[in-house]
Amino acid sequence: MTHTNTINDLQAYCDDLGRRALNASRALTRFSGADRDHALHNIAAAILDNRRKLQADNALDLDAGRANGLSSAMLDRLELTDARIDLIAESLRQVAAQPDPIGRIESGKVLPNGIRLQKRRVPIGVVLIIFESRPNVTSDAASLCLKAGNAAILRGGKEAVHSNTVIAACVREGLQAAGLPTDAVQLVETTDRAAVGHLLQMEGTIDVCVPRGGESLIRAVVEQARIPVIKHYTGNCHVYIDASADPDMAVSIAHNAKTHRTGVCNAAETLLVHQAAADNGTLKRIADDLREAGVEIRADEKARQTLPDLKPASDDDWATEYLDKIIALRIVDSLDQAIEHINRYGSRHTDAIVTTSLADAERFANEVDTANAFVNCSTRFSDGFQYGLGAEIGISTDKLHARGPMGADDLTTYKWVAYGDGQVRP
Amino acid sequence: MTHTNTINDLQAYCDDLGRRALNASRALTRFSGADRDHALHNIAAAILDNRRKLQADNALDLDAGRANGLSSAMLDRLELTDARIDLIAESLRQVAAQPDPIGRIESGKVLPNGIRLQKRRVPIGVVLIIFESRPNVTSDAASLCLKAGNAAILRGGKEAVHSNTVIAACVREGLQAAGLPTDAVQLVETTDRAAVGHLLQMEGTIDVCVPRGGESLIRAVVEQARIPVIKHYTGNCHVYIDASADPDMAVSIAHNAKTHRTGVCNAAETLLVHQAAADNGTLKRIADDLREAGVEIRADEKARQTLPDLKPASDDDWATEYLDKIIALRIVDSLDQAIEHINRYGSRHTDAIVTTSLADAERFANEVDTANAFVNCSTRFSDGFQYGLGAEIGISTDKLHARGPMGADDLTTYKWVAYGDGQVRP
Repeated sequence: MTHTNTINDLQAYCDDLGRRALNASRALTRFSGADRDHALHNIAAAILDNRRKLQADNALDLDAGRANGLSSAMLDRLELTDARIDLIAESLRQVAAQPDPIGRIESGKVLPNGIRLQKRRVPIGVVLIIFESRPNVTSDAASLCLKAGNAAILRGGKEAVHSNTVIAACVREGLQAAGLPTDAVQLVETTDRAAVGHLLQMEGTIDVCVPRGGESLIRAVVEQARIPVIKHYTGNCHVYIDASADPDMAVSIAHNAKTHRTGVCNAAETLLVHQAAADNGTLKRIADDLREAGVEIRADEKARQTLPDLKPASDDDWATEYLDKIIALRIVDSLDQAIEHINRYGSRHTDAIVTTSLADAERFANEVDTANAFVNCSTRFSDGFQYGLGAEIGISTDKLHARGPMGADDLTTYKWVAYGDGQVRP
Repeated sequence: MTHTNTINDLQAYCDDLGRRALNASRALTRFSGADRDHALHNIAAAILDNRRKLQADNALDLDAGRANGLSSAMLDRLELTDARIDLIAESLRQVAAQPDPIGRIESGKVLPNGIRLQKRRVPIGVVLIIFESRPNVTSDAASLCLKAGNAAILRGGKEAVHSNTVIAACVREGLQAAGLPTDAVQLVETTDRAAVGHLLQMEGTIDVCVPRGGESLIRAVVEQARIPVIKHYTGNCHVYIDASADPDMAVSIAHNAKTHRTGVCNAAETLLVHQAAADNGTLKRIADDLREAGVEIRADEKARQTLPDLKPASDDDWATEYLDKIIALRIVDSLDQAIEHINRYGSRHTDAIVTTSLADAERFANEVDTANAFVNCSTRFSDGFQYGLGAEIGISTDKLHARGPMGADDLTTYKWVAYGDGQVRP
């Protein structure tokens, strides 16, 4: 196994990867969900069996990262501690424990001519996952693709190349032990960026690409891709405090959505407050609470009329995903203005209203164009684990195919299966 | 209303179209399914009310078509006879009569923390439909988009520009009479191809493009698009006669799949016959029947051992969508070889097996990578009307989002709606 840029003919290498994946995906249709779950358990066992090797090779990545001046946050995400290795194995077992998405009959009916028609859930086929530094994504992505009966081509970041290579070898070992095709999960064995360019052109072989990483990675993938891409863009999430909001709940949800974890896509980035909730003192309570938690508030003119010591917001603030202890604040005159603001500046990820009005809750849920519309709970719940999907490949900000937290189910498609007894069109 | 190339600033024109569509799509979220159905009925009435105007302007298209040397088949597709105008109105009413896809709760559950989570069906938003000559597509596309609560931007072919313009005016009239935003359906008022190029770049405004037309149109759209495209490629459909096939049924299904209508995407283009069905005389019966119906058979070497007077097939034949009274014929040694052939040469559209073996039927249904896997019935049933979808926007050969016949349901997406009572992440 090589993980240096020694592949001479990248196009041929990618064609071969694709052909192997396609063959494996076809072969996978002949295995049951139990077979695939068995492989997931075997992969978990292989990860634990290879703990030392995994940590030794992870140390090479960490050394290289230090030498290359990676930030301590990046180095932290890269490190495979004992607890993280246990978690990788545990995640694999949790995915195995989920219901099999494949073969499920979504709907069925008997047509007037007697044909029995089924809409049946099937694997997508070949899935390309492109990701950045965290090596656990290698096993997460492999496990979700396998659970859904897909062949996976995984392209990790160069910072984690040694760690990813060992994890991929464990995946292969687990597949082999379960009798599944080992090409069902392949790691791209070069960090040459041109390989990604080739893979993204492979219409008819690779069915979809899911890039996991920062906005620039995703934009670069979309630029180059001829195959469909499911995008997981940024989360510019909003919390809107309605006129009728319960003040305690408003303080608590704003606090949690902003401060529980700031570096994640489902953290709140803008707070919208109805003028009535500014006038009745709720705004001041929220602002005091957030400032006490060390959050910088960037406020519009109206908010600064109530709280003159707040820093003024610029127009850029409305569109910014801070991923930090900063929040933008705007006072709105109406629910309409709040909805309009979110639809204009939001990223269609997760947006919450705090309200006691049933009508306002329903209008918000219907009219905000977002993957996750929340009423009276923190944006931080927008997450595949929280939704009970078992694991997630990410949170789609796309509207087609999959929206919001994506689990193994979202890595499937359907086919129509019709059973007749000789019917022909009259 | 202008339908000549007199728009000076195409970019500004497209931006304006997009902005209007986006605003209309947002406004549509505040109308009920009954409101949208009411508009569909009003549009049907407007079409019938404007029958004379429609036929007068259609005559301009027909005159221009004759002057430009359009084929008689093309002229036929373009013509709006009385019967076709009645059918347009009837289709609109049929779409109105379908259940409302919007607001349907796909799944719901109460999370352990008490949050009530719903996966709710919602409109996609703004849909761009690009189509060729048949003017009835203007109202079909408008009605399906509206049914699903979407704003539509329609781009028809230049051959039908006068007819499309009148139909679009009727749509507008119907929307207005129902109190819906008239920008919910807009016709691109220029046949300048550059307009399509601009529209296909409008990420964030236009959510999806569905091109309806020949392969070259679709390829050109995919080439240029930054927005997602749902593709309706050709139908290289197969009928496979298994070893155990009932001979009468084999003859009847092969006949119907090939000859019922040859110019359509769900007509059979290749016949695969198990060696046993060649040896037992079924092949000869099928071949005699097809030749009697005037079908040219292009056969592989093995078939020509049984029927030496057949014309030999070349490798190109396996990948050809004839859309004509021609069929390719290949003898296979096994079900595996049949599946392999279809997965290699097929277009993932519609493929049928004729068999009495339950095991072979199931393997075919599972292992053939196709949108529509048929057991013992004609490929001609692969159709939105036949499936009871009410109407169809086309037959998707894509695997993401929508596969096979696409109805109004497939022009929707979902959002997650969560109802809490103050939950925050611990």
